[in-house]
Amino acid sequence: MVSPAIRVAPSAANRALNLLRTVQYTHPPTCPCHSNPNHHHHHQTPSLLSHVRRHMATPIDPAREKEYAFEMAASSIRFGPGSTKEVGMDFKNMGAKRVCIVTDSTVTKLDAMKQAVEGLTREGIEFTVFDKVRVEPKDSSVKEAISFAKPYNPDAFLAVGGGSVIDTAKLMNLYTVFPEADFLDFVNAPLGKGLPVTKPLRPLVAVPTTAGTGSETTGTAIFDLVSQKAKTGIAHRNLKPTLGICDPLNTRTMPSAVHASSGLDVLCHSLESWTAIPYNERTPRPTNPINRPAYQGANPISDIFSLQALRSTVQYLPRAVRDPDDHEAQSNMLLAATLAGVGFGNAGVHLCHGMSYPISSQNPGYKHQGYNVDYPIIPHGVSVAVTAPAVFRFTAASNPDRHLAAAEAFGVDISNVKRESAGEVLGAALAEFLLKLGDQPRGLKDLGFKNSDVEGLVEGTIPQQRVLMLAPTLSKELDAEKGELRKLLEESMDY
Amino acid sequence: MVSPAIRVAPSAANRALNLLRTVQYTHPPTCPCHSNPNHHHHHQTPSLLSHVRRHMATPIDPAREKEYAFEMAASSIRFGPGSTKEVGMDFKNMGAKRVCIVTDSTVTKLDAMKQAVEGLTREGIEFTVFDKVRVEPKDSSVKEAISFAKPYNPDAFLAVGGGSVIDTAKLMNLYTVFPEADFLDFVNAPLGKGLPVTKPLRPLVAVPTTAGTGSETTGTAIFDLVSQKAKTGIAHRNLKPTLGICDPLNTRTMPSAVHASSGLDVLCHSLESWTAIPYNERTPRPTNPINRPAYQGANPISDIFSLQALRSTVQYLPRAVRDPDDHEAQSNMLLAATLAGVGFGNAGVHLCHGMSYPISSQNPGYKHQGYNVDYPIIPHGVSVAVTAPAVFRFTAASNPDRHLAAAEAFGVDISNVKRESAGEVLGAALAEFLLKLGDQPRGLKDLGFKNSDVEGLVEGTIPQQRVLMLAPTLSKELDAEKGELRKLLEESMDY
Repeated sequence: MVSPAIRVAPSAANRALNLLRTVQYTHPPTCPCHSNPNHHHHHQTPSLLSHVRRHMATPIDPAREKEYAFEMAASSIRFGPGSTKEVGMDFKNMGAKRVCIVTDSTVTKLDAMKQAVEGLTREGIEFTVFDKVRVEPKDSSVKEAISFAKPYNPDAFLAVGGGSVIDTAKLMNLYTVFPEADFLDFVNAPLGKGLPVTKPLRPLVAVPTTAGTGSETTGTAIFDLVSQKAKTGIAHRNLKPTLGICDPLNTRTMPSAVHASSGLDVLCHSLESWTAIPYNERTPRPTNPINRPAYQGANPISDIFSLQALRSTVQYLPRAVRDPDDHEAQSNMLLAATLAGVGFGNAGVHLCHGMSYPISSQNPGYKHQGYNVDYPIIPHGVSVAVTAPAVFRFTAASNPDRHLAAAEAFGVDISNVKRESAGEVLGAALAEFLLKLGDQPRGLKDLGFKNSDVEGLVEGTIPQQRVLMLAPTLSKELDAEKGELRKLLEESMDY
Repeated sequence: MVSPAIRVAPSAANRALNLLRTVQYTHPPTCPCHSNPNHHHHHQTPSLLSHVRRHMATPIDPAREKEYAFEMAASSIRFGPGSTKEVGMDFKNMGAKRVCIVTDSTVTKLDAMKQAVEGLTREGIEFTVFDKVRVEPKDSSVKEAISFAKPYNPDAFLAVGGGSVIDTAKLMNLYTVFPEADFLDFVNAPLGKGLPVTKPLRPLVAVPTTAGTGSETTGTAIFDLVSQKAKTGIAHRNLKPTLGICDPLNTRTMPSAVHASSGLDVLCHSLESWTAIPYNERTPRPTNPINRPAYQGANPISDIFSLQALRSTVQYLPRAVRDPDDHEAQSNMLLAATLAGVGFGNAGVHLCHGMSYPISSQNPGYKHQGYNVDYPIIPHGVSVAVTAPAVFRFTAASNPDRHLAAAEAFGVDISNVKRESAGEVLGAALAEFLLKLGDQPRGLKDLGFKNSDVEGLVEGTIPQQRVLMLAPTLSKELDAEKGELRKLLEESMDY
């Protein structure tokens, strides 16, 4: 397992990429009115006339103003093989006396849970276990979990599992702190009211057992709102776990199929956040920082995480899927999942994720091989990756350089690729990567979708405005937007 | 000010560097005893015999065991021109009713303070202002600040200023929450007791007005312990600000000399954290995660921040120093300072910082030009950079590849450089960078130090064990260590 030492291959590419990143977030030019940033960002080449006009203008509607700042927030992350056993001490250190452990029926039997339970027991901390988390949660399963947590009224939560477990634990925490709230109060608009979370929640320690969602670092929780036939969720920085404990020993228990589909989620997190609209193109500008969304568009810090996660995923995911004993690759995928979590957790995702929600919830009956559940399931990673080749062909026009940099991360020699071919090249690289990974559907048809299902998928995607607003090149006008989504879904029928 | 668009120069260097980063943190090989990580990390090529021996061995003293995990924690960071004015809403959102604003006699007159005061006033939040922070704080000035804060008993702090201001605010916060503590209780061992901070502190929002210390993201506060003739500090994650507001409008007020010296601090933060010993070579392994230091050695996440900050500093610092109207360069230096803060705040610094503390506190009378104070001063950035060429010549043997990658960040073509020349090449690149920056001392002699002062500087460095322990290639044995420090200081007399 000892890796060979390598030499640094020297070149100017690092500096060039660095430059690229930087120049895309141009700050406003010098201007004596700089104490009021509302007056900026509307001119690339200021003239005296435009300057005077700005000062004379009537107040501008902030809803039409572009953002001028970004905010990075992430959970503390501990990474190391065996670190799960420290968790009892962590709760003791934070003064927790009554912990609700959240897990599912599979993970509850694994060593990760054994370590967690032993850790709490060793420190004499009272706890209870909720092990009924549903893989790909529904509102009903979430509500059942909340009903469990409220009467126990823990002073801290411990989530041990994949994204479904960690997301459910975030929601148990939220509604325990806001016991009077209606379930839809915090759900993303327009399906819910999208209210901000105005109080800090209780400490939540997340111990991921998959390398995928990055949920241990984010303030996002996703579930299926059955009545609306749509996946949606709740997103606010206050939902972030206090600490994510990333223990590579815990992902060794993943079956190969779970390595693959959770890794595809990492792939799309990194690609979508890397290509999302820049933060300073997002509208509206929030009038209070509490309303600045976590999904705020690409920014110079999220970029660092997203690109690194993409490179690691390309390098290590095929190895992790192929060889269950390649612990170096598995460990690097766990790190990549967390890095991508910080990236998309502060930049957002867009089309692959937006379309994945109806794909998963309108599943015609597909059951992915290697998943040990008694109901049809399109794993989240599969449902995001299936549209990826079409999506990045479509978005490349918005920023060919970024799409070329992504293609390069897949090992494509882009030295002679024209900028207008960026989408074709990245789409082809993605299709080839998915094909080589093995056991992946070659499009929506393989999942059982027919052409007649496309309209339902379009209708299920439209409510995902929180992520669609970050999609570059997507039309703002509803009919045009639907047409573009329809085309993307049709192109994703097979690739 | 609009930057030209550039194309991505394609190459394999990104992937190679990525590989480099990864292979340096090799995880233990597969082993059935993996549920106890104490049994790992002592063999590169496990044999059945060594495996059996591990299982039969008597318990190992954890003080001699190497670390197996790392932990990343950073303040939330908001970045954007004009974002200072949001700070009143931030305090209102967190429910603060009584805020202590901390600043110094220079910054109190600047627009940053005006924005902060107006922001709090607009939201009707009660506040008081402490504007007596000393540039390069001493224990006496820190104690004066604490005496101001304790009776006011604010429920939150707001620091507006450079590293001295933010560090002082952290200490005011700490000793307001622990009013009965002795001042030395939390001070880094061996000068103080180095006790961990066992309770969360009150919210602290930091608004940096320099691009240097990265203090807005770290849990470190540095000051001069006059009785011991040594700079030292307090370092614990709980000291971290809740939020750093990085507003590029606020660093426009820096004089050119302050741009330069604070930028040199960024340079050394990034270089020292990038070259610090790997986290999994540090001893002792903590028996409780609360004792895992923030300065934990280089790790795969800090690396990303440190290398990016280094590249940005090389690119933008000369521009920021040369042209006071180059706001793009200034803005990028503020971002670089924050990125480097996250990097070294979780990996640590080593020899340049270790030696800088006695250099600053044993100042023979040097007053750096461009600093508006009425006492002799070697700015922190100057005192760290002055030994840098000697330091990285010395440390290169520990990891030539990393030192070559750093040299490449300075624009050196390393394609034909031998690994054994890494130190010479990086040292020369650094010396040239400092020379071209202008107005920098060409070594300790220019600061007024004589050869007869070296012994005092060595003695003043030895107590900095918290950072010296992270120095690669430094001897553990005291006499050898002193000899190496002596040689580094002698080589730094002029370069």
